[in-house]
Amino acid sequence: MLGQLNHVAIAVPNVREAGEMYRTKFGAKVSDAVPQPDHGVTTVFVDLGNTKLELLEPLGENSPIAGFLAKNPRGGIHHVCIEVDDIDAACEQVTSEGITITGTGKPRVGAHGKPVVFLHPKDLYGTLVELEQA
Amino acid sequence: MLGQLNHVAIAVPNVREAGEMYRTKFGAKVSDAVPQPDHGVTTVFVDLGNTKLELLEPLGENSPIAGFLAKNPRGGIHHVCIEVDDIDAACEQVTSEGITITGTGKPRVGAHGKPVVFLHPKDLYGTLVELEQA
Repeated sequence: MLGQLNHVAIAVPNVREAGEMYRTKFGAKVSDAVPQPDHGVTTVFVDLGNTKLELLEPLGENSPIAGFLAKNPRGGIHHVCIEVDDIDAACEQVTSEGITITGTGKPRVGAHGKPVVFLHPKDLYGTLVELEQA
Repeated sequence: MLGQLNHVAIAVPNVREAGEMYRTKFGAKVSDAVPQPDHGVTTVFVDLGNTKLELLEPLGENSPIAGFLAKNPRGGIHHVCIEVDDIDAACEQVTSEGITITGTGKPRVGAHGKPVVFLHPKDLYGTLVELEQA
């Protein structure tokens, strides 16, 4: 069921500063910052060739990463996103295995314009896993 | 300077159980558990095609992940490992950029038999980054 690692998401207080750090100090290829008001985050991507780091900064009220940053003010690794071929089949499988899908339990369109779900870390040894239809 | 993402390391209380979970519930390709007494961890790898998850369980006294698991008893994402072509050149560059290398500040042979260093999360927006010579 699991495909490739799409990205590792890292929450930071300031996505432009963090992106600039990866660009200037590590010579990484870094995208522009893109505000995504529908998702409550501003994103910057750090290209690592085989996958990417997705830097996330809270945007607006009720950002889904506000609580995480309150607990980890410097920032920290927030989740991993793994691709699946068929998000509906993946949801059915994980649910049948007793893994909780957060929120409504149904896929919604994620920050990359593709259907995603988040699996609850309590069922995955403390790791928040996003599944994204490839 | 930065190459591909070699792995995402996830600390768990029991690496065999966590590996079995990824194998049976997600159909992932999962390695056997390998005790690495020199590194204070037992490892299991979850193959994602383009990269891997490295599940880590503390082994012996003074395991480098014991403190993390004490704070996160269910487990959690511990670090990301990024490949570099030349670990000595990478150390020189990050040091010149004011980034702290943990421990002695010098590369040592990591769990994959290659030279590695860990960069302090205080300088990287809360993310512990391992650099490994490819």
